Amino acid sequence: MDLVIISIVLGLVAVIYGFVTSRQVLGAGAGNERMQEIAGAIQEGAQAYLKRQYTTIGIVGIVVAVIVALTLGITSGVGFVIGAILSGVAGFIGMNISVRANVRTAAAAQSGLQQGLTLAFRAGAITGMLVAGLALLAIAVFFWYLTSIAGHAANEREVIDALVALAFGASLISIFARLGGGIFTKAADVGADLVGKVEAGIPEDDPRNPAVIADNVGDNVGDCAGMAADLFETYVVTVGATMVLTALLLSDLGDLLMPMMALPLLIGGVCIVTSIIGTYAVRLGGGTNVMGAMYKGFLLTAVLSVPAILGAIWFALGGDLNTAIGAENLGNVDVGAPLAEEGTAAITSFTGLDLFLSSVVGLVLTGLIIWITEYYTGTGFRPVRSIAKASETGHGTNVIQGLAISLESTALPTLAIVGGIIVSYQLAGLMGIAYAATSMLALAGMVVALDAYGPVTDNAGGIAEMAGLDESVREKTDALDAVGNTTKAVTKGYAIGSAGLAALVLFAAYTTDLAEFFPEADVDFSLENPYVIVGLLLGALLPYLFGAMGMTAVGRAAGDVVKDVREQFAADKGIMAGTSRPDYARTVDLVTKAAIKEMIIPSLLPVLAPIVVYFGILLIAGQENAFAALGALLLGVIVSGLFVALSMTAGGGAWDNAKKYIEDGNHGGKNSVAHHAAVTGDTVGDPYKDTAGPAVNPMIKITNIVALLLLAALAA
Amino acid sequence: MDLVIISIVLGLVAVIYGFVTSRQVLGAGAGNERMQEIAGAIQEGAQAYLKRQYTTIGIVGIVVAVIVALTLGITSGVGFVIGAILSGVAGFIGMNISVRANVRTAAAAQSGLQQGLTLAFRAGAITGMLVAGLALLAIAVFFWYLTSIAGHAANEREVIDALVALAFGASLISIFARLGGGIFTKAADVGADLVGKVEAGIPEDDPRNPAVIADNVGDNVGDCAGMAADLFETYVVTVGATMVLTALLLSDLGDLLMPMMALPLLIGGVCIVTSIIGTYAVRLGGGTNVMGAMYKGFLLTAVLSVPAILGAIWFALGGDLNTAIGAENLGNVDVGAPLAEEGTAAITSFTGLDLFLSSVVGLVLTGLIIWITEYYTGTGFRPVRSIAKASETGHGTNVIQGLAISLESTALPTLAIVGGIIVSYQLAGLMGIAYAATSMLALAGMVVALDAYGPVTDNAGGIAEMAGLDESVREKTDALDAVGNTTKAVTKGYAIGSAGLAALVLFAAYTTDLAEFFPEADVDFSLENPYVIVGLLLGALLPYLFGAMGMTAVGRAAGDVVKDVREQFAADKGIMAGTSRPDYARTVDLVTKAAIKEMIIPSLLPVLAPIVVYFGILLIAGQENAFAALGALLLGVIVSGLFVALSMTAGGGAWDNAKKYIEDGNHGGKNSVAHHAAVTGDTVGDPYKDTAGPAVNPMIKITNIVALLLLAALAA
Repeated sequence: MDLVIISIVLGLVAVIYGFVTSRQVLGAGAGNERMQEIAGAIQEGAQAYLKRQYTTIGIVGIVVAVIVALTLGITSGVGFVIGAILSGVAGFIGMNISVRANVRTAAAAQSGLQQGLTLAFRAGAITGMLVAGLALLAIAVFFWYLTSIAGHAANEREVIDALVALAFGASLISIFARLGGGIFTKAADVGADLVGKVEAGIPEDDPRNPAVIADNVGDNVGDCAGMAADLFETYVVTVGATMVLTALLLSDLGDLLMPMMALPLLIGGVCIVTSIIGTYAVRLGGGTNVMGAMYKGFLLTAVLSVPAILGAIWFALGGDLNTAIGAENLGNVDVGAPLAEEGTAAITSFTGLDLFLSSVVGLVLTGLIIWITEYYTGTGFRPVRSIAKASETGHGTNVIQGLAISLESTALPTLAIVGGIIVSYQLAGLMGIAYAATSMLALAGMVVALDAYGPVTDNAGGIAEMAGLDESVREKTDALDAVGNTTKAVTKGYAIGSAGLAALVLFAAYTTDLAEFFPEADVDFSLENPYVIVGLLLGALLPYLFGAMGMTAVGRAAGDVVKDVREQFAADKGIMAGTSRPDYARTVDLVTKAAIKEMIIPSLLPVLAPIVVYFGILLIAGQENAFAALGALLLGVIVSGLFVALSMTAGGGAWDNAKKYIEDGNHGGKNSVAHHAAVTGDTVGDPYKDTAGPAVNPMIKITNIVALLLLAALAA
Repeated sequence: MDLVIISIVLGLVAVIYGFVTSRQVLGAGAGNERMQEIAGAIQEGAQAYLKRQYTTIGIVGIVVAVIVALTLGITSGVGFVIGAILSGVAGFIGMNISVRANVRTAAAAQSGLQQGLTLAFRAGAITGMLVAGLALLAIAVFFWYLTSIAGHAANEREVIDALVALAFGASLISIFARLGGGIFTKAADVGADLVGKVEAGIPEDDPRNPAVIADNVGDNVGDCAGMAADLFETYVVTVGATMVLTALLLSDLGDLLMPMMALPLLIGGVCIVTSIIGTYAVRLGGGTNVMGAMYKGFLLTAVLSVPAILGAIWFALGGDLNTAIGAENLGNVDVGAPLAEEGTAAITSFTGLDLFLSSVVGLVLTGLIIWITEYYTGTGFRPVRSIAKASETGHGTNVIQGLAISLESTALPTLAIVGGIIVSYQLAGLMGIAYAATSMLALAGMVVALDAYGPVTDNAGGIAEMAGLDESVREKTDALDAVGNTTKAVTKGYAIGSAGLAALVLFAAYTTDLAEFFPEADVDFSLENPYVIVGLLLGALLPYLFGAMGMTAVGRAAGDVVKDVREQFAADKGIMAGTSRPDYARTVDLVTKAAIKEMIIPSLLPVLAPIVVYFGILLIAGQENAFAALGALLLGVIVSGLFVALSMTAGGGAWDNAKKYIEDGNHGGKNSVAHHAAVTGDTVGDPYKDTAGPAVNPMIKITNIVALLLLAALAA
């Protein structure tokens, strides 16, 4: 059977899993009337926000779609629209499941920890499988249409451009969703904490706080919908880039062309199956180690994926893993002879076995990143405990130590990524790096499942609190939620780590495209060319500027929330007395407007920067230097963005869990000096880890993709 | 007369200025007995610290000197020792002037603002001129000895290696001094604030606080001695690198060889004269605008330097500014023809006028960086005010807004540096960039004067407080000190900005050396080579790891201070009652030990990293990729380090002045909610701006220099 068709079928399996499991989740008891009322308010707020967000994005999207269609042709325009719409759909469905599973998790937690875990994790798994499944379907169906119905050859320019445009659509929506959702969730969270916990002295999730529903809405639109769109984007870009690189580098493949183009899709497909199997292993097994249950599921998926990927490669290559597959230029390796005779030789072939081993590198890298993130954000290890200890001497030392940990936390992931690059490159050159990235993303279903579980349990705790359920329920949801900070940090580390590899693949596509479109241009990408330095510096600046905008936006919007809540408290004394209900919708509406307004300019930064840099340097120093600066810009973004994103996401997670660790009774426990300091650290970490940090991932990809599209448009 | 001799004479002028002015300063009244007693304690503590620091550094220095001498020869070993010793001397003299000028400034401020300003600024100017003068003398005398007494040709390998070794000595001492001093000053500052202001509720500089003397000692050993060593290093490396690049790139100069080698020295020399003239323009002129008085001095120096540099170039080139000077390869420029015929051409010549215009670029860049830093750290502009405003809603929002500003503050300096690179490169290729960097550093005397003024006024305020002088005196010293935060941030921005250019010059020296030492090696520095990516990533990691270590060290040492002070308070109730005196020396001793211990490992990071990366990649992928990765490491350090350092230094300055702005009565003034939050921000900013951030500058240079020496050692 056709490999693409098999991939489509496997993608459909994920969607079917999603529908079946969502029936199970929705069939569970939704708790008492008060719980349903609260959940209804959250649901309403989340839907209102997403509707407004997607309307705004839609306008930008239509403009960009028209530009893409006019410059690159109608097929690319359609690709862009598919990517954009499905990215939105992934986020929308994830959010919809999440806002219904939260109240059911709270209800299930009344029966026991395992019941609560099962429900929340299933809800996460639905989002996970739908993200992976829809992403796979988007590329596979579009590719199938182009090569079957439209009759293009698999490596024709029109197919390549259309795949890049598809990725662009996914990325553009994703950055808006990540940033808009990130600003919403953290503005509401920080604002609610400042005015509730700090000023009014009422606990988190207290129903008297007018911002409490906005805070819970934020979990769903930011941590769930935004994250889902982000991972959808990462999946589409990574698998798409691997296919594009295959088309660009591997010529004269003959009968192997179609299988090699379809192989990344098939790897994605088989790993959907291993991910689904893994979800069933997430069980406490009698204990109470929630993180351990999660790991069991992930580990089973990862281990099963090894033979599954081997099988996929074996099948695609017609049962032959050892014959060399020729390529134009996979890069250069040092031939390793003694100095006098030494020289570099182009890698011109690889075997199926090389691809398999490169894929294993990706799996190992995923495991390493999870393990490192757990170390830096888990309450059982030095980093979080050092922040907790530093909290004893106050706000200042808490923040200093948190910043120190956030800087430090970049080291091990960087070394792991560098190791992954070296090993996969030695195996199969650029194609090895592409396959390492692809196999990382193939596990997306499982990783997203672990992450999407977080906001469900977070909301469940909020609902339990607001509905006045028994203390024991809140304890269970807290136990479930405690691992949420780590799994959230894991996903972000995973996404940015894979982005590191994917961006290298995109950069290779850029240089290959350049050689194809402008064969007469002699572009000097050497570090000795000052325009390369200029590009690196400007690229490195982007994540900083982007981060600054995101942080400022959260601060500003949170300030608006504080003012709104103060006004509500002042206008109606009954709110604090508990006799009258605050106007939750007004706060939700305010945050919605602020988030939408604030997301536009930073999201357009990575779209416009490559264009401005290209034309700027073109005017000053001619086209060849403009191409060199643009290429360097792409690498500057990834080199700097990797560190900015890793430090922000791990640091934020560590601050959050340092607070949790103190709340568990260490260093004086709740309401101690250390606890007040830890609350400050948590507040600082919020926009770090949930707004600016994770949005750097789509930002890196957009910069790279816009550069690819710019080349195609210039050549057209 | 010989250009080198003229330069030596001009260097001596700076030293003479220093001696004459220090007699004036030391001749001023030293206040009453209590003031002298306090000043004596600070002096004693500072000397004890520096003695211990230099002893420790001395041991490391001797080991490294032996290694340098054994691998590169005795001349290089001597160069290393000269650089190391003079770097230490610069810091030592600066500190010695500072600890004597502080009490005299407090005394002078009793007479009036202008009197206080004159004394404090003269003290700063002494340090400034000695830093510039000693740096110039170090290179000029050593170069004169090598080319006259030892009889080497100006561009001989032994001369080049010796100049690089001289720079290495300066850099190595400087990183220890910057980091050790930075840890000392901030551990004492943060510790004193935490336990004094926050816990005991006593004001800053209260004599009952046992850490108060340590805090004042810190200003002298960190902000003065550390800063002086840092700028000494920056000067030596920049001027030295320009000379090395001249020797490497410009062959067959004939009679022009010696003048071209000596020209950077002459530019440094004439700008010492313009700097001295500028110091006399620092006058209030009846008003109270201290910053305005500073600017008058700087502006006069900058404006006078334009004709002075033009004259120096005209004189060195025998009155001819228009004849092209040939070079081997100054880089490539795009010839700018229409696309079809386009291509890049090597720049092979430049004129004296080109060098002059490149130098003007450096002067303009210095002015721009000062202006941008003032914008980001001055109390009159949006950034600081936005942090102050965010403080109203508490600690968390203060820190969030501060981090946002620190990220944002990297943008304009980066654009200015990029502009400087492009323009100077278009003028004279790599030589243009080198001259832009040299003319930046030529103003070091004036810039250091502005900076070294800060700790003097800071200490003066402390002494006035502790000695119980009239409120009006403290008001005047506060007015003088207020601009100190901005001038301190200015110097750091200036140093790191110049490092951006200097590192490019060093990288050019690396590639040129590589071609000379290993002509058969075909090193691929292209961004398409994955080992280049690996090098960029590992290089970018270094400032993060280094920053993490510095921040952690401050947090840990500050915690020790808190414990020590708590113990002293507990053991003797008379301290808080004001009846018995705390044991200041014990706290000074504790911070000294902690700072010395903590500075070692991070300082060795940039020394060892290039060596580890080279041999690591050599084992994995052969020598050519090892050279490529090492080169990329150098650029990775500068690209990432630039942003880390800029964001930390500007952000820290902004936090500090936001606190000052609130203390001036805005947003509720002292002891308001906003003020408490601003104190937290200030505490967080302390290790950012005074420990981790500024030490990144020598770190970048050390990495580059070690790579150059490694090449020479491998070829030997």
